[in-house]
Amino acid sequence: MSESSLLNKQNTEKETYFLMEHEGADLISKFKLPVAASKLAKDETDAVLSANSIGYPVVLKGMFKDIVHKTEAGIVKLAIENDLQLKEAYTEIIENAKKYDPLAVMTGVLVQEMADKGIELIFGVKRDPIFGHQLIIGFGGTLVEIMKDFSVRMLPVNETEVEEMVKELKSYPILKGYRGQSGINLSEVKRICMGLNKLVQEKPEIAELDLNPVIFNEEKATICDVRILIDEQKVEQNQSRSLEAVEKMINPQSVAVIGASTNENKNGGRLFRYLVENKYPGKLYPINPGAKDIKGYKAYPNLIDVPGDVDLACIIVSSDRVPGVMRDCITKGVKAAIIYSSGFAEIGGEGEKLQEEVLALAKEGNIRVLGPNSIGIASPEKQIYTAFGAALESKVKVPGNIGFISQSGAMGSALLSKAWEQRVGFSRWISVANEADLSATDFIEVLAEDELTNVISVFMEGLKDAAAFERASKKALENEKPLLIYKTGRSDVGKRAVQSHTGTIAGDDTVYSAAFDKWGALQVNHLEDLIDVSVALDVQPLPNGNKIGVMTASGGACSVIADLCSEKDLDLPELTETSDKILELIPPFGSAQNPIDVTAEIIAQPEMFKEVLETLTQDPDIDGVIVMLTTNADPGASVIAKAILDVFKRNEKPIVVGRLGATAIAPQAMELYSNHHFPVYSTPEKVVNVMHYLVRYNKLFKKQQR
Amino acid sequence: MSESSLLNKQNTEKETYFLMEHEGADLISKFKLPVAASKLAKDETDAVLSANSIGYPVVLKGMFKDIVHKTEAGIVKLAIENDLQLKEAYTEIIENAKKYDPLAVMTGVLVQEMADKGIELIFGVKRDPIFGHQLIIGFGGTLVEIMKDFSVRMLPVNETEVEEMVKELKSYPILKGYRGQSGINLSEVKRICMGLNKLVQEKPEIAELDLNPVIFNEEKATICDVRILIDEQKVEQNQSRSLEAVEKMINPQSVAVIGASTNENKNGGRLFRYLVENKYPGKLYPINPGAKDIKGYKAYPNLIDVPGDVDLACIIVSSDRVPGVMRDCITKGVKAAIIYSSGFAEIGGEGEKLQEEVLALAKEGNIRVLGPNSIGIASPEKQIYTAFGAALESKVKVPGNIGFISQSGAMGSALLSKAWEQRVGFSRWISVANEADLSATDFIEVLAEDELTNVISVFMEGLKDAAAFERASKKALENEKPLLIYKTGRSDVGKRAVQSHTGTIAGDDTVYSAAFDKWGALQVNHLEDLIDVSVALDVQPLPNGNKIGVMTASGGACSVIADLCSEKDLDLPELTETSDKILELIPPFGSAQNPIDVTAEIIAQPEMFKEVLETLTQDPDIDGVIVMLTTNADPGASVIAKAILDVFKRNEKPIVVGRLGATAIAPQAMELYSNHHFPVYSTPEKVVNVMHYLVRYNKLFKKQQR
Repeated sequence: MSESSLLNKQNTEKETYFLMEHEGADLISKFKLPVAASKLAKDETDAVLSANSIGYPVVLKGMFKDIVHKTEAGIVKLAIENDLQLKEAYTEIIENAKKYDPLAVMTGVLVQEMADKGIELIFGVKRDPIFGHQLIIGFGGTLVEIMKDFSVRMLPVNETEVEEMVKELKSYPILKGYRGQSGINLSEVKRICMGLNKLVQEKPEIAELDLNPVIFNEEKATICDVRILIDEQKVEQNQSRSLEAVEKMINPQSVAVIGASTNENKNGGRLFRYLVENKYPGKLYPINPGAKDIKGYKAYPNLIDVPGDVDLACIIVSSDRVPGVMRDCITKGVKAAIIYSSGFAEIGGEGEKLQEEVLALAKEGNIRVLGPNSIGIASPEKQIYTAFGAALESKVKVPGNIGFISQSGAMGSALLSKAWEQRVGFSRWISVANEADLSATDFIEVLAEDELTNVISVFMEGLKDAAAFERASKKALENEKPLLIYKTGRSDVGKRAVQSHTGTIAGDDTVYSAAFDKWGALQVNHLEDLIDVSVALDVQPLPNGNKIGVMTASGGACSVIADLCSEKDLDLPELTETSDKILELIPPFGSAQNPIDVTAEIIAQPEMFKEVLETLTQDPDIDGVIVMLTTNADPGASVIAKAILDVFKRNEKPIVVGRLGATAIAPQAMELYSNHHFPVYSTPEKVVNVMHYLVRYNKLFKKQQR
Repeated sequence: MSESSLLNKQNTEKETYFLMEHEGADLISKFKLPVAASKLAKDETDAVLSANSIGYPVVLKGMFKDIVHKTEAGIVKLAIENDLQLKEAYTEIIENAKKYDPLAVMTGVLVQEMADKGIELIFGVKRDPIFGHQLIIGFGGTLVEIMKDFSVRMLPVNETEVEEMVKELKSYPILKGYRGQSGINLSEVKRICMGLNKLVQEKPEIAELDLNPVIFNEEKATICDVRILIDEQKVEQNQSRSLEAVEKMINPQSVAVIGASTNENKNGGRLFRYLVENKYPGKLYPINPGAKDIKGYKAYPNLIDVPGDVDLACIIVSSDRVPGVMRDCITKGVKAAIIYSSGFAEIGGEGEKLQEEVLALAKEGNIRVLGPNSIGIASPEKQIYTAFGAALESKVKVPGNIGFISQSGAMGSALLSKAWEQRVGFSRWISVANEADLSATDFIEVLAEDELTNVISVFMEGLKDAAAFERASKKALENEKPLLIYKTGRSDVGKRAVQSHTGTIAGDDTVYSAAFDKWGALQVNHLEDLIDVSVALDVQPLPNGNKIGVMTASGGACSVIADLCSEKDLDLPELTETSDKILELIPPFGSAQNPIDVTAEIIAQPEMFKEVLETLTQDPDIDGVIVMLTTNADPGASVIAKAILDVFKRNEKPIVVGRLGATAIAPQAMELYSNHHFPVYSTPEKVVNVMHYLVRYNKLFKKQQR
């Protein structure tokens, strides 16, 4: 539920409301959070007494149940030095409050210790409807939205995570102490975070919390303002169903196509053609009351008429007929169905109702359903194509080890056809579409156990069930199958009205990223990464760190790669162990230092190229190697390809290779790479990007081990 | 010259040295810059008098000729409130200075007004060896290196530019006044910048200047610290030579190839083969004392023996023989030569000397030289291929309107072959290599006048002559030929030792960017942009602004494009004029709002697609249109292609088209686009990126007009 709708409910149902500051301060101080010393005073006399007991200077804040934006209302007075100023401030607060909201009722005034100057941070908590409570640490206090310097983690956090959060801040040098200025007390940061862990555990009804500013110096931290939004609504728990029947959906021994057609302009005709043309190895039953046989397969008027068992029902009839077919599935005892038909939740209104009806039938019959509006599943390795769409028209269909799941049919299909054209192979390709029943998360869990799949790659629009996703990604991690996610819908951030700094800076996208990071899923930024990085993760060992050796045959390429590596935080260390040896190998006008330029001499001396590559790869200070080739033509290009593949096989380090230039002038070399499933990237940007993701995934993976 | 070498010279030649702070303050106050009130006191008594005349609180700074880092030395004392504190501070400064450098001689102590708190900025000036004086405005004062929030312009600046610089800062909301806090006085910013304009004009010997911090409030600005580095050395002026002879180099009527060979494994053999195979239309003279004829052309033992005039000498012999050939050129009266031979400045030492010898001969004979170490020039439209390298092996060589200049032969050649494979056409392709004589800048000027060239695209490693570059880019601008630059060598930034904040933040790359921006050259970030964006600038009209209409056939594509547009500052406005009409056209489950999803119905109703596209393109609130297609297959894909080309021709707005998916399933559509030289990009990232550059170029172009 969005913050704006929360607010609308506030006055009607009272399910969501802000605590007054002194209530918030009381609450968090029970969790050992260092709130500025304060007293709630009933009246002016009481305020003077309180101020004298706390000690001047003090801050005075009017506490009115209905005034949330205190500074705007003019009911916060800072740096009060003595009794006289305090009395003046008290009067002003009363007057300003009256002007701002004549009906506001005062609970009292909060007299608060005025913290010394120091470094201002914000600590925030936000309860995400999907992922639960998130912690935000940001620099700049009330300026955080301009500074845009913050880090986010799912709660609870441990002390190591807190340290990471602080180190991630761009302002970290300031927090450490900069140019003789003192920094912050890190153990106070940890104390606050540990307190927030406990707070949200015991008070899950906290929807948003801002501690802002929290003023730090070398010794202590002082929380100067507390704002807490409560939302009493319970978040519904999703019920999970067994995924056993999905095995029949992805590896069916028998398939019935309800809506199969002899007319190949119809989707049902195309779907059936793809099954037949791609030589589906199991039993195939076209269901069509008007046909005798389709493409040589005996047709049946109804699913119920099929003589044997049916593992999978492919339903490709008009939407109004789907409930009837689902009832047939129940009768027939079918446990898995793919619904290709559109006209369900994606069109809203009536479609949503129809989808609910279908889902109810699925639960009644204990049937697991993919779709509606799905383009289906393709399993090239098994020659099972229960899918349709333009991508299936591709002549080249390449089997491989990448399991691909898409919430968008069109984008999934487009990526499939593009990847096949680049000779990238898939174990499974799955269009989850409406997710009435089975979701992308369910298929992550399924593919984590799928023997054909090494890497799981997901085009994601959103998640519904965080706990299921956590379970699925853990399973992928346990089975050492990297999970890649491209998440779209990022630009929604900031469009909504929000009530707190935390709400503003921790948009949906940030929360998704924090969750992916916590559970070891690698989030990629661009669509193509889903393919480029998957292929690398399938073939390449992980680099132990970010120390990269770069090898090219031109000064220009060295410079381009060095620029890109510096943008992507890849370190090109100076070589100490191997530079002498490399210097002996390369021509005098080359560069033996990282990035290494072996020069165009590789055309005349391919052996030299191979020796340098082997030497660089074996350098103990190097975690991975980037080779950037420019236009090399066959036959020379094939010699270089063989050298790279040889060195790659003999060593346990990633070697990411780029080749800028026409592929048509090196067909044999490209064939060689392709036969070894060894990816070669077409631009320096891609090469560096892929290496950067390998380094990131290694870090993610290691973090999960500790 | 780098700052570290400047510093080393400091004590020996005294050509470079720091002004003491009071000297710097005196200097800039003459230019009406608001320096904090201060007095140089000779001794303690004098200091007390000065402090009382300025008024407490004051700052006390020891002035020692040899102590540059005053804070580190402990000779700066802040917030002195009275005479007693002043005397204590005075004693401490003397003691600390002695500890820091026993030999340091004190000139006096600077007693300075202590500025009120406010917003801290830095103003910096840096004299770049190529581009001259640069102005830096940064947020955060001494924290500027952490904040990384600054903007840079070449000096002099006008008031509009100063406003732009301030608005560019991420902290601009703070400077404007944020959450009730007061902002800065903008006219004071302008006053400081106008003062700096005059200062560097009258004192060009200023190499670096930091005014840091400058404390601002709503009324005034106070410069609290001044550091000025003087470098008395004169910067050499480059002499420019006439480019007249370059016409003969790019459009030669007759070419002699010195080093032409019958052996096609040799570079001279390949070069000659490319000339012949590609049907060079002029007179061709192979020069080789050992051959009678080469590929049917009569060979001559020496250039001098050639009967007719020779417009261009292609010199492809071993480096030691080049000076002799140059002498022959002088004798023969040849005015243009391309030297392909390597073994010159690129190998250092002896090679450098040899290059100087060749250059001297070129000047003697008034010959313009490309190279040495060049791969040459290709002019597909004219069938002139005075070039060699693997790219020339491409079977497809496409003529077109892009003039491409590369300082790196390997990268230039690689991009050429890759572009040709994508059917991108070139007017000229030029490898400038060592630039002994003709430079990339010279060829920008030449191509600005070249009738075959519409767009000039440059792979750049560095410039030597800023004035010539300014002249060349102005010429390109006058002739309305967009100039694109990919500049490599960016990661050098920060590697050098620098003496000032300004030096640290205004690295080479920043200065290049400021220069490109000032002179209307479009800097692109990635190598592929050189092709992708050039093609678009050749074909597409410029968008008037950043309001983009997006059209796709899937919700997933809408979401991906919207994310990318938001990253690239492209605005997707809500449609008001046309949304009703579009709503009528598209299916009910589509989206008639920007981004528009016309759904997969375009397969059944391509006319609907065309009408929506036309309507969207004609919407007066839309500056340009992005169409993102997914896997569409022929024949439908061709119908869509025709629709796009039709609408594009009838309207004066850019329509940038992407198609994600295999090209092999839509060969006719791709052919259609290609025949119309209409670029179709392979990913959503590219489409959005290209539109973003069109918007940026339009802004650059307009800025030049005002």
